Amino acid sequence: MARLVMKFGGTSVADIDRIRNVARHVEREVKAGHEVAVVVSAMSGKTNELVGWCRQAAPLHDTREYDAVVASGEQVTAGLLAITLESMGVSARSWQGWQLPIWTDGTHGSARIVGINGEELVKRFREHGQVAVIAGFQGIHKETGRITTLGRGGSDTSAVAVAAAIQADRCDIYTDVDGVYTTDPNVADKARRLDKVAYEEMLEMASLGAKVLQVRSVELAMQKRVRVFVRSSFEKPEDINPHGTPPGTLICDEEEIVESQVVTGIAFSKDEAQLSIRRVADKPGVAAALFGPLAEAHINVDMIVQNISADGRTDITFTVPVADYDRAQQVLAKVKDGVGFAAVEGAKDVVKVSIIGVGMRSHAGVAATAFKALAERGINIRAISTSEIKISILIDAAYTELAVRTLHSVYGLDR
Amino acid sequence: MARLVMKFGGTSVADIDRIRNVARHVEREVKAGHEVAVVVSAMSGKTNELVGWCRQAAPLHDTREYDAVVASGEQVTAGLLAITLESMGVSARSWQGWQLPIWTDGTHGSARIVGINGEELVKRFREHGQVAVIAGFQGIHKETGRITTLGRGGSDTSAVAVAAAIQADRCDIYTDVDGVYTTDPNVADKARRLDKVAYEEMLEMASLGAKVLQVRSVELAMQKRVRVFVRSSFEKPEDINPHGTPPGTLICDEEEIVESQVVTGIAFSKDEAQLSIRRVADKPGVAAALFGPLAEAHINVDMIVQNISADGRTDITFTVPVADYDRAQQVLAKVKDGVGFAAVEGAKDVVKVSIIGVGMRSHAGVAATAFKALAERGINIRAISTSEIKISILIDAAYTELAVRTLHSVYGLDR
Repeated sequence: MARLVMKFGGTSVADIDRIRNVARHVEREVKAGHEVAVVVSAMSGKTNELVGWCRQAAPLHDTREYDAVVASGEQVTAGLLAITLESMGVSARSWQGWQLPIWTDGTHGSARIVGINGEELVKRFREHGQVAVIAGFQGIHKETGRITTLGRGGSDTSAVAVAAAIQADRCDIYTDVDGVYTTDPNVADKARRLDKVAYEEMLEMASLGAKVLQVRSVELAMQKRVRVFVRSSFEKPEDINPHGTPPGTLICDEEEIVESQVVTGIAFSKDEAQLSIRRVADKPGVAAALFGPLAEAHINVDMIVQNISADGRTDITFTVPVADYDRAQQVLAKVKDGVGFAAVEGAKDVVKVSIIGVGMRSHAGVAATAFKALAERGINIRAISTSEIKISILIDAAYTELAVRTLHSVYGLDR
Repeated sequence: MARLVMKFGGTSVADIDRIRNVARHVEREVKAGHEVAVVVSAMSGKTNELVGWCRQAAPLHDTREYDAVVASGEQVTAGLLAITLESMGVSARSWQGWQLPIWTDGTHGSARIVGINGEELVKRFREHGQVAVIAGFQGIHKETGRITTLGRGGSDTSAVAVAAAIQADRCDIYTDVDGVYTTDPNVADKARRLDKVAYEEMLEMASLGAKVLQVRSVELAMQKRVRVFVRSSFEKPEDINPHGTPPGTLICDEEEIVESQVVTGIAFSKDEAQLSIRRVADKPGVAAALFGPLAEAHINVDMIVQNISADGRTDITFTVPVADYDRAQQVLAKVKDGVGFAAVEGAKDVVKVSIIGVGMRSHAGVAATAFKALAERGINIRAISTSEIKISILIDAAYTELAVRTLHSVYGLDR
């Protein structure tokens, strides 16, 4: 017997037929003797409808009211799934964020979970074998008693937080892909599904555009040591052996991964634009004078590369989200005279390709392998930035697929 | 300055434009210096959608889960109206049933309100001039902490209960008619809007098919002495003088009605079917033997008329809702031999016309006037039942309009 959290997203609960399918997944685990908490999103499309109404009512609206409106979507799904489970003879009840409660801070619209009391759920598992159906994405602010939401994709975070609170053996995230791949299978057909990924790696992959899991849910899983299993929601419940090992990817502690490879995956992000400041005076305070105004304009700066200077002047290159490119240019134009630089150059047709792997820490030459392979293909490197377990390379967008396939192959990730 | 509750139904909040119109009605009262609590229903169509999903999930479902699903409709409207009010510069916040809280008993699906604490609302009126936007139709069961709903039309009851809790000067029910009429204007074009109706009269009218207000809300208003004002939601907010007397009907204590008429209105209900049991043995226990099995089958028996017997046998006539007519026949067929009667006769094309007025208590001859007037028109009376302030007459449905117009005229209700 295990204790499981099962999380289902909006497309998995889009209508009553699909909710019934979800209920059969739950029934399977219950029949196998497991204790189950389910976390659900709103029926797909519902959240957009609710958000649309809020915006229509007022473009700038009180986020506390926005949260009250938008949280209703998950409330509906939780009730409907509980009804469906009970109609199948599975004991179940729904829990709203405020009922459990899922305490959060007061950052309405993107609140952070600060605590969940899992005792009542565990008591009900034990005494009644009751399945807990929990509305994802929502919580309650302890001080004001008002409904909060966790921001887009927040149901993943709800699921991980519930798993931590009830000390679940595993948190299963049912999604439209059957796991985490070494890279995007649409780009490299040799992409393989990974059996296991370390938290740190998944964090890099999630932030770099792999889009399987919300970044914060991975952070929380790492912090609370929750074993997260990404699996397909399309498999028929009756085809799955609840005692076997279903296809999917386990996101877990590095220690649990016995045969760790040097490189785990290749991620890429097209949502990047490059800006280069030419011939900046190389003196203290220049970086602050450049990046301070960008931060004030809420422009998120990503890779920052600065070369050693020659003749007291240097070049600084960095990336921003494509949507902020024009605005960033305007900010830089305003500070040009104050800071003192020759020109701003930029490009929107760039892509950031990242090589990720916890094994890098103990292996030399990983970066050199990438540079050599890309050079052999004639791919020009615009900028490089590295961390302990990641190497990010900025290249022309036209070479995206070629670069990804080349790196996937050179690090031995092809099947 | 007055303290007001304003209640708006589903058609008044069907989309953002209409919610904006509601917000202007609220703004008008706030600008006039009043303290305002608003009670809203779900956007029209939403409750049906939610109920439909529950039924699709399982025809027989846990009413606790049903309540959690269905209550989400009012939650959305309350948030959207609060957003709209704030965008107009009117301080406002939404309140869910569980937040206020509106305590109810545990009868999920048709719960009764047992208490509301209005102190926090009054404090906010005084300190911040804040409008309370309250989700109607819902509450929370004190013992279980689960969401309850009050049943169809329950928002009227929510509004009256809130008015009682905050000791409001008036509870304005905005609806698609501009008040309570002496009879249905579609049947008698001489129908007049009543300025004032006593609680007891309204109770009879509401239960007899006038459909302006939910019966329970009138009961509660009578019990708590809440002055309820029925008025039109179609009037443009800017056309209304908040200090004047808008068109509408005040439902109030009998004492407040100075020039009370003998008869206040003529109501009728087509949802009636007649059953007559011929030649029943006139002995103790017969009525119980007939009506016991009907009650067990959840058939609601309305008018019951039994004549003085001749030769130890009597006839019993009663009415049931049209939808239960066939089922009632079956129940009676089963008990026929046990009870001992000659035959069951029945008719579905009947209508119950009722003459209502608190003035009847002190006036003799009211019934005689009706019988004479109907007889002169050649309308046959099938059954009669009376109460202190009401006379109900069962006639053939074909004569409905003629009977209503005749009675409306004979009691001096024509304009």
